[in-house]
Amino acid sequence: MADIQESKESLSENLQQVISLLEKHKLIEDLLHKQAMPKHDLVESLVHKQHISALQAKLDALHPADVADILEALPLEQRLDVWELVKVERDGDILLEVSDAVRQTLIADMNSDELLAAAEQLDTDELADLAPDLPKDVLQELLYSLDTQNRARLQSALSYSEDVVGGIMDFDIITIRDDITLEVALRYMRRLGSLPDHTDKLFVVDRDEILLGVLPLKRLVVNDLAANVADVMAADAVVFHPEDAADEVAKAFERYDLVTAPVVDSNNKLVGRVTVDAVMDYIRDEAESDKLSMVGLREEEDFFASIWKSVQNRWAWLAINLVTALVASRVIGIFEGSIEKIVALAALMPIVAGIGGNSGNQTTTMIVRGLALGQVASHNMQSLITKELGVSLLNGLIWGSVLAVIAYALYGNYQLGLVMMAAMTLNLLLAALMGVVIPLTMNKFGRDPAVGSSVLITAVTDSGGFLIFLGLATIFLI
Amino acid sequence: MADIQESKESLSENLQQVISLLEKHKLIEDLLHKQAMPKHDLVESLVHKQHISALQAKLDALHPADVADILEALPLEQRLDVWELVKVERDGDILLEVSDAVRQTLIADMNSDELLAAAEQLDTDELADLAPDLPKDVLQELLYSLDTQNRARLQSALSYSEDVVGGIMDFDIITIRDDITLEVALRYMRRLGSLPDHTDKLFVVDRDEILLGVLPLKRLVVNDLAANVADVMAADAVVFHPEDAADEVAKAFERYDLVTAPVVDSNNKLVGRVTVDAVMDYIRDEAESDKLSMVGLREEEDFFASIWKSVQNRWAWLAINLVTALVASRVIGIFEGSIEKIVALAALMPIVAGIGGNSGNQTTTMIVRGLALGQVASHNMQSLITKELGVSLLNGLIWGSVLAVIAYALYGNYQLGLVMMAAMTLNLLLAALMGVVIPLTMNKFGRDPAVGSSVLITAVTDSGGFLIFLGLATIFLI
Repeated sequence: MADIQESKESLSENLQQVISLLEKHKLIEDLLHKQAMPKHDLVESLVHKQHISALQAKLDALHPADVADILEALPLEQRLDVWELVKVERDGDILLEVSDAVRQTLIADMNSDELLAAAEQLDTDELADLAPDLPKDVLQELLYSLDTQNRARLQSALSYSEDVVGGIMDFDIITIRDDITLEVALRYMRRLGSLPDHTDKLFVVDRDEILLGVLPLKRLVVNDLAANVADVMAADAVVFHPEDAADEVAKAFERYDLVTAPVVDSNNKLVGRVTVDAVMDYIRDEAESDKLSMVGLREEEDFFASIWKSVQNRWAWLAINLVTALVASRVIGIFEGSIEKIVALAALMPIVAGIGGNSGNQTTTMIVRGLALGQVASHNMQSLITKELGVSLLNGLIWGSVLAVIAYALYGNYQLGLVMMAAMTLNLLLAALMGVVIPLTMNKFGRDPAVGSSVLITAVTDSGGFLIFLGLATIFLI
Repeated sequence: MADIQESKESLSENLQQVISLLEKHKLIEDLLHKQAMPKHDLVESLVHKQHISALQAKLDALHPADVADILEALPLEQRLDVWELVKVERDGDILLEVSDAVRQTLIADMNSDELLAAAEQLDTDELADLAPDLPKDVLQELLYSLDTQNRARLQSALSYSEDVVGGIMDFDIITIRDDITLEVALRYMRRLGSLPDHTDKLFVVDRDEILLGVLPLKRLVVNDLAANVADVMAADAVVFHPEDAADEVAKAFERYDLVTAPVVDSNNKLVGRVTVDAVMDYIRDEAESDKLSMVGLREEEDFFASIWKSVQNRWAWLAINLVTALVASRVIGIFEGSIEKIVALAALMPIVAGIGGNSGNQTTTMIVRGLALGQVASHNMQSLITKELGVSLLNGLIWGSVLAVIAYALYGNYQLGLVMMAAMTLNLLLAALMGVVIPLTMNKFGRDPAVGSSVLITAVTDSGGFLIFLGLATIFLI
């Protein structure tokens, strides 16, 4: 039995072993180059070869996903050294497993022949995942080398984004007719000799490939062998279309506990299938990219990417932040006269702005989650806003009082404390209102509220917080 | 065929229909109460009954997960009205589908008998999910009503958290012996008549329930009927132990494309199985709770929870934020003398702090992700810090120059611009260093770096940003 504990431990161990073998290899190479001692050449190149073959044996024994992890965790130079040692026939599988950023570094290191050899090992749906990263001429040659059916499939798969069924489906479908008995179906299975991964059901079609139903293997093995497929199959299976949103498909897989599901075109003709592992990959990728985009990272970043590439990946967010910070700064600028008179205002104003931002982000996170789950809609928006305003009012009075006491203790000015409390409450109310309105508005205009809401909320509560606090202070204290 | 498009549309439609039926029902109830017109009583109660039965028919036709969604999206009063109408025998399934927060509101509305009736519909592993929310006396009675095997299973399941295999496994296992032929195995399947959900493999055990291997249904249907199970089964299946981390299991399911996997105890005795749908639920829940905890929401919050409950859910984060904001405020307080002299400092200081915070959060997000994927370890920490410092230096020089020009344009003071640029660069370097060190340190001490890193980073870059900027200004400008 393959124990999960063992495989977990071995991940970091694997990495450690690979690195130490690489370092020994490097050491000897350096010796060979620098010293050029002919007497020792033979011995050393033997030791050298020994390390290389130990490393190669190590890599060959690992699952492609494990090799991918090692490649991800290595700096560019070492990564390419290891990549050279990976067997050609495993290149394709490993390229599929690594992240986009690392894939580009590996592909850049391969010539056309190596790329074509790697691509030849892959299924059409896997090729579609790899294709966008391939050089144009390699992609052309690849299309040329495929048979008509697979070329059509690849071209169709390439025309869909990763966010729709067409982009995540595969073509490993086993079809049977509905007018045969289970015994005949079983005989057909035995003739095939093996079934594609994740096959939990056969697709029942007529002679025009129109989907009639699905026959789960579970039903195939528990029912009478003399029964007809038509009588045993499920005619009401959940089906998808290539243009369905992958997000909806993920929900359907979770809701109806699916392992595979057929994909049909508008004429109900079977064109492919979606498997639970493609759906899991999609869910995981979405969760990852949500987290990245929430701090303005545009894409997954190779840990060992050049500094310049990293700056490019991150600059957009910082630029936006600079603009919003400048606006907030100008709001403060308006009240410079007041700050000159009561300098305590400068020290207290970031508190009002900061807590407003945090509170607003809590509200936005709730709303974005409710939108994703379909729980937030026009009919309950009114009661949501009322509730959030209530929470903010209570928080404003509680934390505002605490701050009022602290401000009084620090500056001995009870009016300053009252202004602090009023500003805090008003800014939290602003945060609550915007925390509901901004994501709903973004959603209404078809934008993903998960990405930009947080920036907008913080911009509003910063500038708003400074305006409210300094404004109230100017009116009542000066 | 059940079309995904249809089911998606019907989600909000369902909700709309339920609400309108509920409102009609309420309207008539009000009429009956207020007017008390004996003549119309008969007619009105007939109309009333009609609406109720229309609503009931609507609910009966929906999948438990769909009913759960409707319950989530309704305010408390309407939610309980709908809950009353759900058939008793579906209560259990629906309670499993709703969120923890909503489940508590539903359970609070049920008496012991109703709860026991709902629990009786469920499998042992499902009971374990529900049990923590049940009143103590109901749980006792429930344990008492189970047979010895199921009681032992439930007690064992309750002893594991949701983060380990023991908390997500189920007991729907079909076992066979290894010395029978496939033909005998198939005859056994047909005698069973149906297989549990997600059954993609049978578990091969000896007479002491020790796991010998697994027999995928795929192999059962493609191999020669005369072959022995022992010859066809996979003896090297991936197995899990009840105490394995669910997180590692999720990775293994993705890596090895599993649909189900056996769970064994330390003697290799089969105790249960993990299914891909339990793993998907786990992944989804983790992603959700990550998002919530990143803004300091302690748990999923019922949209229609009382204001007071929401305040409690959110207060901890705001309290922490208040403390960090006060520290930053005291840092500014130290430099009040400088601000009095150059009031422009007050307007410019939030820019330095804010951009530092954003940049630090980008770094932290990268590192947290790398830690989760196992790509960050001691051997590459050095090169990560070097890279992040490089990115920050470049960003600091670029954006610092932009700010220097703006500061000069606004205040006509080129020294102020230079201080701005220097402060910006230094704070970004601080952000990069802390962005790597804080999550790595939290990880080293066994804390989840995803939760607290962001607060700590922002605290450091705020106070640090004010200190650096106002400190430099005091040294060079005053």
